[in-house]
Amino acid sequence: MKLGRLNHVGVATPSIEQSLAMYRRLFGAEPSSPAFDLPAQGVKVCFVDAPNSQIELIEPLGPDSPIARFLEKNPQGGQHHVCFEVPDIETARAHFERLGARILGPTRIGAHGTPIFFLHPKDMGGMLTEIMESPKQAH
Amino acid sequence: MKLGRLNHVGVATPSIEQSLAMYRRLFGAEPSSPAFDLPAQGVKVCFVDAPNSQIELIEPLGPDSPIARFLEKNPQGGQHHVCFEVPDIETARAHFERLGARILGPTRIGAHGTPIFFLHPKDMGGMLTEIMESPKQAH
Repeated sequence: MKLGRLNHVGVATPSIEQSLAMYRRLFGAEPSSPAFDLPAQGVKVCFVDAPNSQIELIEPLGPDSPIARFLEKNPQGGQHHVCFEVPDIETARAHFERLGARILGPTRIGAHGTPIFFLHPKDMGGMLTEIMESPKQAH
Repeated sequence: MKLGRLNHVGVATPSIEQSLAMYRRLFGAEPSSPAFDLPAQGVKVCFVDAPNSQIELIEPLGPDSPIARFLEKNPQGGQHHVCFEVPDIETARAHFERLGARILGPTRIGAHGTPIFFLHPKDMGGMLTEIMESPKQAH
């Protein structure tokens, strides 16, 4: 297991629309594609591209969203998680399980359409960490 | 102004040594160079490379460190800031000043030896943001 690409930094926001206005105004940055709902995660998602990585803006889909509590504590939003790529999600899951790192929930399909899971922040230096299988095509 | 490379994610930790042990155990990752003190920022610094970006581990140099309060709130550590590159720091500073984004303190030399400044999280969707002049050589 090697440390893979930093696919994105996940940033919680009360409003993707307001966050996009901020990136547009300060950085001239536009989203790489329109925002979309990811009901399995309880969030609305929109990516803003840096040349080498991405910012993933995530907005709660409803009051039961997994990020609702984060936004209660951080009403403005802020850094929520980081995401590293792996070549194969099942190999990675077995690897982390063998090492005793806690995995949050089942492997599921993430915002880039590939399987993902989350490592518990307590096993990652306080940092909620998404592990994502690399897309098969260049991105 | 374009959104530049995501140079690194800054991660506060009570112990760089313990964080490195975690990255080594879970990801087989080694620091790109030994940890070093950055007294101007009040932190000890160590970088861990992902293929496209870096994790910057930062540990307080003393009780007056700017990250001491962050670690009081987050004793395990966690995501502290993100850093985007710009081609020229003075142009970037003038750009953000003109747009009314609050800049925290003077422009100073950062961990990669190039000038940096920080944007206030309240003007960046709750995300403390370092703006860093790209190193002149490839990195």
